[in-house]
Amino acid sequence: MGHKLILASASPRRKELLEQIGAEFKILAAKGEETAVSDKPEQLVLELSAQKASEIAESLPAGEANTIVLGADTVVAFQREILGKPKNEEDAARMLQMLCGNTHSVYTGVTVIIIEGEKQQLHSFYEETKVTMYPMTERQISSYINTGEPMDKAGAYGIQGKFAVYIEKIDGDYNNVVGLPVARIYQELRKLGIDLLEH
Amino acid sequence: MGHKLILASASPRRKELLEQIGAEFKILAAKGEETAVSDKPEQLVLELSAQKASEIAESLPAGEANTIVLGADTVVAFQREILGKPKNEEDAARMLQMLCGNTHSVYTGVTVIIIEGEKQQLHSFYEETKVTMYPMTERQISSYINTGEPMDKAGAYGIQGKFAVYIEKIDGDYNNVVGLPVARIYQELRKLGIDLLEH
Repeated sequence: MGHKLILASASPRRKELLEQIGAEFKILAAKGEETAVSDKPEQLVLELSAQKASEIAESLPAGEANTIVLGADTVVAFQREILGKPKNEEDAARMLQMLCGNTHSVYTGVTVIIIEGEKQQLHSFYEETKVTMYPMTERQISSYINTGEPMDKAGAYGIQGKFAVYIEKIDGDYNNVVGLPVARIYQELRKLGIDLLEH
Repeated sequence: MGHKLILASASPRRKELLEQIGAEFKILAAKGEETAVSDKPEQLVLELSAQKASEIAESLPAGEANTIVLGADTVVAFQREILGKPKNEEDAARMLQMLCGNTHSVYTGVTVIIIEGEKQQLHSFYEETKVTMYPMTERQISSYINTGEPMDKAGAYGIQGKFAVYIEKIDGDYNNVVGLPVARIYQELRKLGIDLLEH
């Protein structure tokens, strides 16, 4: 018996990843102001992903049958600082200067809320991927900022676009850096008896 | 002064990666029968990438100015066996059974031949990425083979498509597994005074 999948995120990259693996889903983006409580990145992304998934789960009509709501949140962490999306271009430059030539961590927290009639289960987990960047010149940084790619991305870069030439290596799941660890999500749901790819 | 870039490969994935980073290039695919000599994967991909790049470089009209010919070859290696593209569906199943639940290495060898008037330089290097797969059931393997994706890919899988749900993690460069380590290529050419992204 299939479950209806709802992605609680407006991120085009998360949508693309779910499409890439062949999942069927619809999008109901959470828009509430999430309240960050923790200053630990792994805890923070768990909390924020749970807030997003809960907002959408609570908005569904009562008695919704066999539905999975998927919330996710991604941050970059480097030397105890947590980086979200840059506030402006100076902030993007500051982040890229900090990250280039170094290794940082990307955390994506995921919460799935499984609704089966009256029953609800909530599962949260996170994935960490280490990313090592090549050094960058001032000119390379400002030329990348001019592409406009950094502004809507945690840590001010997108691993899947033009920035690829500055990524030396990663240790962990690549799609986790893009914004959704689809492999881990698929495997966790399989353990719960749900196969996302069987429609 | 810009160089004209020629990709000596018909692989759609290599083409997409060069487009993704914003390089300008044309494609002249090598078609000669490459002759594998070495049984070491790192040596093998160096040899084959050099054969591909040389075939195209030799076919160019004499006196071609400021041209870079880029050849690449990718193999998968697991426990001393080198895996190229599967011969048929049984061979694909054998490869996936071997790789799933384990960690293997992907090697891409790259050769750039830089032609500047009478002068030619050749540079070869390789990148290794370790890939760890989740276990797979017989049914998951045959269902993946039915997508048709494995048949033109070394090791019988494509990391960038539906197979993403079976990739637990990687250690190294992701695009190297897709088939072209664009970051390493960009950085190596920069050391030689060539910026692929300045047109």
